[in-house]
Amino acid sequence: MDQVSLLTVFGSEVIGTGILILLGVGVVANVLLAKSGALGGGYIVIIFGWGLAVFAGVYAAAKSGAHLNPAVTVGLWASGASEYAPGVPITISSTLVYFAGELVGAFLGAVVAWVAFQKHYQEETDPGTIRGTFCTSPAIPSPVNNVLTELIGTFVLIYIILRFGDTPTEIGPLAVALLVVGIGASLGGPTGYAINPARDLGPRIAHAVLPIRNKGDNGWGYSWVPIVGPVLGALLAGGLVNITS
Amino acid sequence: MDQVSLLTVFGSEVIGTGILILLGVGVVANVLLAKSGALGGGYIVIIFGWGLAVFAGVYAAAKSGAHLNPAVTVGLWASGASEYAPGVPITISSTLVYFAGELVGAFLGAVVAWVAFQKHYQEETDPGTIRGTFCTSPAIPSPVNNVLTELIGTFVLIYIILRFGDTPTEIGPLAVALLVVGIGASLGGPTGYAINPARDLGPRIAHAVLPIRNKGDNGWGYSWVPIVGPVLGALLAGGLVNITS
Amino acid sequence: MDQVSLLTVFGSEVIGTGILILLGVGVVANVLLAKSGALGGGYIVIIFGWGLAVFAGVYAAAKSGAHLNPAVTVGLWASGASEYAPGVPITISSTLVYFAGELVGAFLGAVVAWVAFQKHYQEETDPGTIRGTFCTSPAIPSPVNNVLTELIGTFVLIYIILRFGDTPTEIGPLAVALLVVGIGASLGGPTGYAINPARDLGPRIAHAVLPIRNKGDNGWGYSWVPIVGPVLGALLAGGLVNITS
Amino acid sequence: MDQVSLLTVFGSEVIGTGILILLGVGVVANVLLAKSGALGGGYIVIIFGWGLAVFAGVYAAAKSGAHLNPAVTVGLWASGASEYAPGVPITISSTLVYFAGELVGAFLGAVVAWVAFQKHYQEETDPGTIRGTFCTSPAIPSPVNNVLTELIGTFVLIYIILRFGDTPTEIGPLAVALLVVGIGASLGGPTGYAINPARDLGPRIAHAVLPIRNKGDNGWGYSWVPIVGPVLGALLAGGLVNITS
Repeated sequence: MDQVSLLTVFGSEVIGTGILILLGVGVVANVLLAKSGALGGGYIVIIFGWGLAVFAGVYAAAKSGAHLNPAVTVGLWASGASEYAPGVPITISSTLVYFAGELVGAFLGAVVAWVAFQKHYQEETDPGTIRGTFCTSPAIPSPVNNVLTELIGTFVLIYIILRFGDTPTEIGPLAVALLVVGIGASLGGPTGYAINPARDLGPRIAHAVLPIRNKGDNGWGYSWVPIVGPVLGALLAGGLVNITS
Repeated sequence: MDQVSLLTVFGSEVIGTGILILLGVGVVANVLLAKSGALGGGYIVIIFGWGLAVFAGVYAAAKSGAHLNPAVTVGLWASGASEYAPGVPITISSTLVYFAGELVGAFLGAVVAWVAFQKHYQEETDPGTIRGTFCTSPAIPSPVNNVLTELIGTFVLIYIILRFGDTPTEIGPLAVALLVVGIGASLGGPTGYAINPARDLGPRIAHAVLPIRNKGDNGWGYSWVPIVGPVLGALLAGGLVNITS
Repeated sequence: MDQVSLLTVFGSEVIGTGILILLGVGVVANVLLAKSGALGGGYIVIIFGWGLAVFAGVYAAAKSGAHLNPAVTVGLWASGASEYAPGVPITISSTLVYFAGELVGAFLGAVVAWVAFQKHYQEETDPGTIRGTFCTSPAIPSPVNNVLTELIGTFVLIYIILRFGDTPTEIGPLAVALLVVGIGASLGGPTGYAINPARDLGPRIAHAVLPIRNKGDNGWGYSWVPIVGPVLGALLAGGLVNITS
Repeated sequence: MDQVSLLTVFGSEVIGTGILILLGVGVVANVLLAKSGALGGGYIVIIFGWGLAVFAGVYAAAKSGAHLNPAVTVGLWASGASEYAPGVPITISSTLVYFAGELVGAFLGAVVAWVAFQKHYQEETDPGTIRGTFCTSPAIPSPVNNVLTELIGTFVLIYIILRFGDTPTEIGPLAVALLVVGIGASLGGPTGYAINPARDLGPRIAHAVLPIRNKGDNGWGYSWVPIVGPVLGALLAGGLVNITS
């Protein structure tokens, strides 16, 4: 297959991750922010919202293999794959381009979600609710446990994605979407299942820079957890696939 | 492929959009109207109801490519496509036939939904609830923000539909249905996610002309928002596909 | 294709409709009966339960084309099809065999559901709840309106099933399952969406003959509605397909 | 096809059943344990969580045919199949290897779920809730009825799995996942739908050996029910397929 340019990869990951985070930040805003018509929709709406956010994002970023998540990039590298997507060899440059596209897309997606819900952010008076629409926080703060929970959730995500090819029935983007619904249903409560460093860091930066009336602090003290946990989980998943293939 | 007649296109869009709106107006009536067995079913029922309304409508209108939505028609035009469906060239006539079929279907679908729930409309005493089953209204009225929210939701809908072909795994009508479930989950709260001018205008006209006991005003003052927002979103999505393809 | 014997058709429809009604009566019992672990699961569980009941039933009855519903049989006949399933010509005999298999299966499925929930039926003291797990009743009794609601719901079911072949993407049993979830979400509240004469009559007979402690009357006065409405809806759907093909 | 080694089968079933139970125990912990962000998510989250746990597990164990459940192994044997998976003949050795892999995987999956929710287990003070996240218990204790309910649920599971091949449309792991969602929706309330001896026994052993602060007894008196019921249901399903094929 022809080489895909790194500019195409960057643009593809920006738009795909952007749509993922627009819909992902969106679903939390939709269910939690004051006066939203979906207020009180509950956890089932949250998990389908995030799953279908991935669904849409994968279609948008098909050209670059739709990583949308540095943990996917890291997991593919650790698995011993030769390409990040058809026509995109694994190099230091391409790795950095994926990371950059994912982070920029996540930031921009959060900004657009804020635009879509702007009046509701203005009416919301609880800083915890506001930040909770952007980025994750632990139900019970405990760095080691929080890292472990993120590591386990991300391991499941990356390991199963790397195993998709073993099964002849292909439902493509729907399979990843359902996997994310499942991880949210089963492992989301303790840490809000970032399972994606860009998903947490990009919107956290957006929360920091956007002019939101009643916002509080940005939770930087926790921000390393949804980076370290997912990266470790991805390395574990990729490594396990590598040694068993 | 053989030419498809514009009469076939019209009939196909009428039946498809009719079933979409029958089930779409239906799910809101089902969950909100007095004495319905589904009263209180909640937002999760609403979003799956609308998504599966699209699912059924797409099967019904397969012959004309199942637009069901002027924003799809506009988005295809803006994307630089050569046909609206296999055998249907893009012309001024065919564009107007799509718009007419979509609007007539949406009106008729709302009428049939009213028939299905007639006793419940008679028992319902709140005019806001009655109109809320037919057409959308903003949670926080603010024309600019409401247009932006509709623009963003429609952009996601049309952009992803136009990207479906990039992915080899085809789940067809299910993919559009899930996309609509996702947009409802994530972006529906502020404006009720019309994301389709016909979806809002057709039932609003039905609300105006049907003899409903406790109905109030038709909300014409807001009715331009779910037309302008979706059209702008579709132009943006189609244009972006056009310049990046 | 080889002829399929009518005995095979009968057995296939009995097991398929049996599993459909076991899971369909089951989901209502699960969500409504005293002391069930799923008590209060809500309308979203009901509609997915019925949809996936169809999903399972279709796999079980694949040999006979998985009608599971006299309305499907009637609709196929009215559509001008030549066979009820590959190898099963449409005749008076085969029609009656489908009807018999569907009704016997529905009765047996309800009996097995009663076995699965026997202790919970013993603990349940409300006769309305007990009968509500077996068969449908109107939220607002009104024969003409109730027939219309059942007619409209069944029309959507049969019309879309008859149109499935127009779309190249085939998801088979899942498509019917989702269609039933959608009809439940959108049109289920007024009459409990029988949309299938066997679904209502079979379990109603089971309710009449089973020794249930606190049961009340069998609602025979309403029992013709979920037969007449669905048959009319199926004739309309089949006829419309017939004249437009 | 080449022979698959029994070591591969063992490893495949351990990882697949491990992920199934990690996500399955996880979803109950997520919805029930103190301070979880998903607390109160309800029955709809439980049934999708378990269904998608199967979904993920099937991908992980594709090499061994993804039994993940001794009832599947027993059902295949009873159906007269010649292989447990492509390249895995049915023998006493292979049967025992499947059973061992399923049980070990279920135990390990529960341990990992406990790690992911460790802080929440520490905060939870109700022993019944704690044990309820690991293994099943009857809503109304009654050995005969509880066995019957488990038998019926497992019969549906195994019979439909064995019939999947009759239908040309293949959605693979998704079909099993949806079947499990449906059985949970329809038959889960009385006994918590183990429908899998390893699903219940493995986590029950984990509950017994793990150092959990407020845990109570292990419910060994009930533990034979979710073994005997599913095995009988699987024998019935396999036998019925055997005599009707």
